[in-house]
Amino acid sequence: MRELTSLGLKTAGGRVLVLDQTRLPDVEEWLDATSPYALVEHIRRLSVRGAPLIGVSAALSVAAHAERGASRSELQQACASLRQARPTAVNLAWAMDQMRGVLEAGGDASELGKRAEAIFDQDAEFCEQMANHGATLIAPGEGILTHCNTGGLVTAGIGTALGVIRRAHELGRDVHVWVDETRPLLQGARLTAWELGRLGIPHTLITDSMAASVLARGKVHRVLVGADRIARNGDFANKVGTYALAIVARHHGVPFHPVAPWSTVDLACASGRDIPIEERAASEVRGYGGMRWAPSHVEVFNPAFDVTPVALIESLILNRGVFSRAALGQGLSEATG
Amino acid sequence: MRELTSLGLKTAGGRVLVLDQTRLPDVEEWLDATSPYALVEHIRRLSVRGAPLIGVSAALSVAAHAERGASRSELQQACASLRQARPTAVNLAWAMDQMRGVLEAGGDASELGKRAEAIFDQDAEFCEQMANHGATLIAPGEGILTHCNTGGLVTAGIGTALGVIRRAHELGRDVHVWVDETRPLLQGARLTAWELGRLGIPHTLITDSMAASVLARGKVHRVLVGADRIARNGDFANKVGTYALAIVARHHGVPFHPVAPWSTVDLACASGRDIPIEERAASEVRGYGGMRWAPSHVEVFNPAFDVTPVALIESLILNRGVFSRAALGQGLSEATG
Repeated sequence: MRELTSLGLKTAGGRVLVLDQTRLPDVEEWLDATSPYALVEHIRRLSVRGAPLIGVSAALSVAAHAERGASRSELQQACASLRQARPTAVNLAWAMDQMRGVLEAGGDASELGKRAEAIFDQDAEFCEQMANHGATLIAPGEGILTHCNTGGLVTAGIGTALGVIRRAHELGRDVHVWVDETRPLLQGARLTAWELGRLGIPHTLITDSMAASVLARGKVHRVLVGADRIARNGDFANKVGTYALAIVARHHGVPFHPVAPWSTVDLACASGRDIPIEERAASEVRGYGGMRWAPSHVEVFNPAFDVTPVALIESLILNRGVFSRAALGQGLSEATG
Repeated sequence: MRELTSLGLKTAGGRVLVLDQTRLPDVEEWLDATSPYALVEHIRRLSVRGAPLIGVSAALSVAAHAERGASRSELQQACASLRQARPTAVNLAWAMDQMRGVLEAGGDASELGKRAEAIFDQDAEFCEQMANHGATLIAPGEGILTHCNTGGLVTAGIGTALGVIRRAHELGRDVHVWVDETRPLLQGARLTAWELGRLGIPHTLITDSMAASVLARGKVHRVLVGADRIARNGDFANKVGTYALAIVARHHGVPFHPVAPWSTVDLACASGRDIPIEERAASEVRGYGGMRWAPSHVEVFNPAFDVTPVALIESLILNRGVFSRAALGQGLSEATG
């Protein structure tokens, strides 16, 4: 494989390295993900997270495994294990299906490497396309609210929702970003704030519970979020908290847009009801990072994602273009775009 | 003063003691609040919090100060300092105005003590009245979502919103409580979960961002919250996050009720626009309890409260009775109830 680099992922000397997102913003530590099983652990621990990045890094890891001489059945097993690492994000399944397709067609390590590189390159290109489509919507001086982290850290390129914001900033649109901290794992506070700081884009951090206050004060003109899986009818799953934001945005008449590459669309899901929602450990809600503040045995509900119905979407920003709620009424299909 | 006791406040041997709410649930430590200036510090640090409790403890502290021989002007100064300790909660101003009234009428330490005791007793009685009024609304098997902490810790009695829940539980209504953790200071995770555990009331802890998911799953039949100040038209201020919950409850057709004693009503405020909203330190949003997870200098917006318009309220539960949104349309006045 040739050497590839993004904010959170790189290949060097046949190794795959991922930036440990659990250590940011204070520590920038790269983890080895050359072994697919090491990557599964990194994904489970959320050291590697974000739907597009998970898919791209999984493809690179499988390719590196092949370069190091893994057998055909070992590679198939690796694809299967990675595919299960996170059930909601569909990009991972999509990337593994591509790698398995190469394997099943008799492809060797070189062909697997080429496919993984193509997945990386395509993801970066998709980011550019989403950013360019999305930026056309943004007027000068807009306040934009975002949730979780959807930037360079979670893609091979400049990001999904955060990529649109970055492009608008680069075009001189003078945007101000309101960053939801995104409990329980605080990807907004830790990662989005860090990325926006690096990029010099003005931003303000709030708790998730404060978003409605900021909207009530008229400071938010648009909400941009990522997506982990988009159903055929336009319903989509994203980081928990997204659905509440969509309701609050609608209440204030503020347009709300998910931003995602086409690989996030799962045509096998007719609607949001078909999207599996992963539940995670109670400890994530009882505290954070080894600190516990709730009673030690309190019962917890910890869904990692929620589903936002298409009815609350102003338009969906895909690499294939911008699709209004009305257009989504006809359903997504391979012909979309 | 006679010896008074509630979950979070007690008097003994002329001293006023408050339970340090910042150390719960793991440590139960009582702080001395016999000096009004010590109490001001406890209030600022949120060791003592909750609109009714702040008012009651301030009255007791002024009375104890008088018993220990403070001069008239020292007592007036103490009332003024306490009155400023938190700008949004109106109960504190209400209690201090009562104590100043006694002082200005020439009352001595004994009369100040009697008035403080009366404020305590009245607050406990108000809790009983709110609980009885509110419990009539609750059907068997309801899921009830609540925010922040509104129980025995923040009143002289069984609480406001949590008092209603407790009474419904005592009446065998088989309720299940969904507890918002309530960032940034986590009063739900730390205090409400602890109180519900002590009371044996079934409950589940969630992050604030998960409330909409729980409503979407049909598990919540009612939202009960406290209030820090209620305007004449029924708009009210409460812990930040309340407004978003009200919007989400309306979206799902779930009734939403603030619960508060009459001392929370500020007839001088025509509407929510007149309620001052206190902003607190950036460090509360950048992390929690000495731990920081956001970039160290990230800009933060940290309003402690938000305002929920009366239009989103199903009914207001006061000690004087239950007032529907329609009834609130005529405005609150001394004649209400």
